[in-house]
Amino acid sequence: MPHFAQRMKTMEKSAQIIRNLFGAMNDPNLISFGGGAPAREALPIDIVREIVNDVMRVDKRGVEGLQYGSVKGLPDLREVVVSELLAPKGIEAKADNILITSGGLEGINLLCQLFIDPGDVILVESPTFVHCVEIFEMFQAKCISVAMDDDGMVAEDLEEKIRKHNPKMVYVIPTFHNPTGRTLSLERRKRIAELGSEYDVLILEDDPYRDIRYSGSELKPIKAFDRTGHTVLANSFSKIFSPGSRLGYVLADDAVSSKLCDAKSATNSHTSMLPQVICAEFFKRGYYPAHHRMICDLYRERRDTMIDCIDRFFPEGTKRTFPDGGLFTWAELPGGIDTTELLVESTGNPAVKVAFVAGEGFFIEGGGMGRNCMRLSFGAVSPEKIRIGAERLGNLIRSRLK
Amino acid sequence: MPHFAQRMKTMEKSAQIIRNLFGAMNDPNLISFGGGAPAREALPIDIVREIVNDVMRVDKRGVEGLQYGSVKGLPDLREVVVSELLAPKGIEAKADNILITSGGLEGINLLCQLFIDPGDVILVESPTFVHCVEIFEMFQAKCISVAMDDDGMVAEDLEEKIRKHNPKMVYVIPTFHNPTGRTLSLERRKRIAELGSEYDVLILEDDPYRDIRYSGSELKPIKAFDRTGHTVLANSFSKIFSPGSRLGYVLADDAVSSKLCDAKSATNSHTSMLPQVICAEFFKRGYYPAHHRMICDLYRERRDTMIDCIDRFFPEGTKRTFPDGGLFTWAELPGGIDTTELLVESTGNPAVKVAFVAGEGFFIEGGGMGRNCMRLSFGAVSPEKIRIGAERLGNLIRSRLK
Repeated sequence: MPHFAQRMKTMEKSAQIIRNLFGAMNDPNLISFGGGAPAREALPIDIVREIVNDVMRVDKRGVEGLQYGSVKGLPDLREVVVSELLAPKGIEAKADNILITSGGLEGINLLCQLFIDPGDVILVESPTFVHCVEIFEMFQAKCISVAMDDDGMVAEDLEEKIRKHNPKMVYVIPTFHNPTGRTLSLERRKRIAELGSEYDVLILEDDPYRDIRYSGSELKPIKAFDRTGHTVLANSFSKIFSPGSRLGYVLADDAVSSKLCDAKSATNSHTSMLPQVICAEFFKRGYYPAHHRMICDLYRERRDTMIDCIDRFFPEGTKRTFPDGGLFTWAELPGGIDTTELLVESTGNPAVKVAFVAGEGFFIEGGGMGRNCMRLSFGAVSPEKIRIGAERLGNLIRSRLK
Repeated sequence: MPHFAQRMKTMEKSAQIIRNLFGAMNDPNLISFGGGAPAREALPIDIVREIVNDVMRVDKRGVEGLQYGSVKGLPDLREVVVSELLAPKGIEAKADNILITSGGLEGINLLCQLFIDPGDVILVESPTFVHCVEIFEMFQAKCISVAMDDDGMVAEDLEEKIRKHNPKMVYVIPTFHNPTGRTLSLERRKRIAELGSEYDVLILEDDPYRDIRYSGSELKPIKAFDRTGHTVLANSFSKIFSPGSRLGYVLADDAVSSKLCDAKSATNSHTSMLPQVICAEFFKRGYYPAHHRMICDLYRERRDTMIDCIDRFFPEGTKRTFPDGGLFTWAELPGGIDTTELLVESTGNPAVKVAFVAGEGFFIEGGGMGRNCMRLSFGAVSPEKIRIGAERLGNLIRSRLK
């Protein structure tokens, strides 16, 4: 057979991590703190049925849902993004600068299409979302990590790395960061936007969790502080509406926005129409505020249960984050425990049967970084099961320390 | 701003053609033989409403439609592809070798991800589908054209070009070809599959129109003659179910199929779930055969009307194809008429107001190739409007010849 393109080799390692990550998650006998899926209760199934029932009775809307649409996305949905999702966060945008994507991840892919030539440097947080590293490596970018602390990406280290490596792009997940749950401080948000302008570097702000904040106070997106168009905001409807719908959006200034449409056209023409029609209607009919309150209450209870259980059942010396939103927390274990090994036992041992994501895969540096860490998702697990699972996992970890 | 990646420059020309092509099509006062959209009457709006109504009452199915799904696509839909769409065409496939894509075009994009490095040669028909040329140019491939006649791509010329240019891939639209409506003969299908194996070249068979044949007799796909895995089949549900759903599939042998999943994962994780659930159900409930007969009857009448009108109203010396299926025909005009100029008048003149696609954009060779040609889509236009539009257009062309 003809040989594969170079990009398939550079992405092989992270593709393998992704395959492993998601492979083990589907065993129904597991209590899974693994995947990052929303709760089943957070899916608006009945509302979707009602909306489809209505819109498909109106011939024009039915055609809209099933016929070809525009590359940029459904005008109604782009308006919803502007008025319901961006304006309340302090971003004044035009619907023309919104591109609807097939999920938030596609926005990341398309921005790489626009800007990344082989060998270009992308700076990422340490740790970072491995699925995006897979994309960056498919584009043959060189990923270099920037230090994080409890306030997110460290701006001083970012500036130093920008000077040293002359990157094309900085990839940052500012709010309820994946995998750590940390949130970038306001001061750093401003500074990162400035650094993009100052050094002529793109800031790719990936912010899919920001809309599910259930404690603490709102922080403006980095994009709100961008004066030069260097920051591009990618977001998703996966956590606030439905992940299976694969709906996301990108906000970029004119020059980037128009090129994004070319790349989208050459990727899959446009995003699936019926999910766009349903999602736009979900907002326009006013379902979002109550739905949003409901899912925030749901996740707050699960977060509180998870934090409480870690504090009770995990061994002394465990560090964990306290996320003000999103779907997961991050724990660092004491005593040199290797979470990749731990996972084999915790999923295989019939008395435990608990899954999580081992930390190592989120660090691009390798060399054992994050080997004692784990991402614990609580979003899709009931409080009862969180208690059972965290106790079993805590006991297993304690037994390993003896 | 940081400069765009090289690929955005190489795709600029075809991106511009695409923007122009689709820009003029939306004027509701035009009779448009331009776009390649299915008829409004061919969209199963009521069936979709009924299916959603049913499946979203069953909790498990509702979750399936809205939650994350697998990279490969919904198992039910992959089974439908195997049993309802491939087996009847003489292809025995395993559901594991099917990847569900976000429209047929995405299959082309993903195969390029797998195989195309900058500078690789892709052989294409002359003329060919400009939207795919946009994709190939985004991957910085060098496109070289292969001669066509009434039986499709000329196998002798293909072999010569393979020897001369050492291509990575051959892109072929074998059935009711876009833009000409021509169909590749059985003998050439066999030969092209053999050439792929013999010269170790990928054959990308893009076959979105094959399922809407309404005269003549079925021909097996090229993939049915492939013994070595060199042929990859991309197809779409756009013409037989709904284009707005953005559903397509790729059939490839094991090694390619598994890499396609990696590329899909790094593009947009997976295809939107609700459209997959609905489309699978559309087939499983047995709606397809009657729907298929209905749309074939609809398009046959429109084809017959269009052909009859070209023969009556277009000037002597016009050559046109007679497609046994699909959505368009192709006309070559006499007397050195430039269809790009003609289009400006036919859309702008209030007494004409007819759109079509000028032929030149479908030829990668440039130098005026196809300047006297036009693609005439009849799929989305009623027979009455076909008669009015073709008469007006024919009169305009005749007036130009005087």
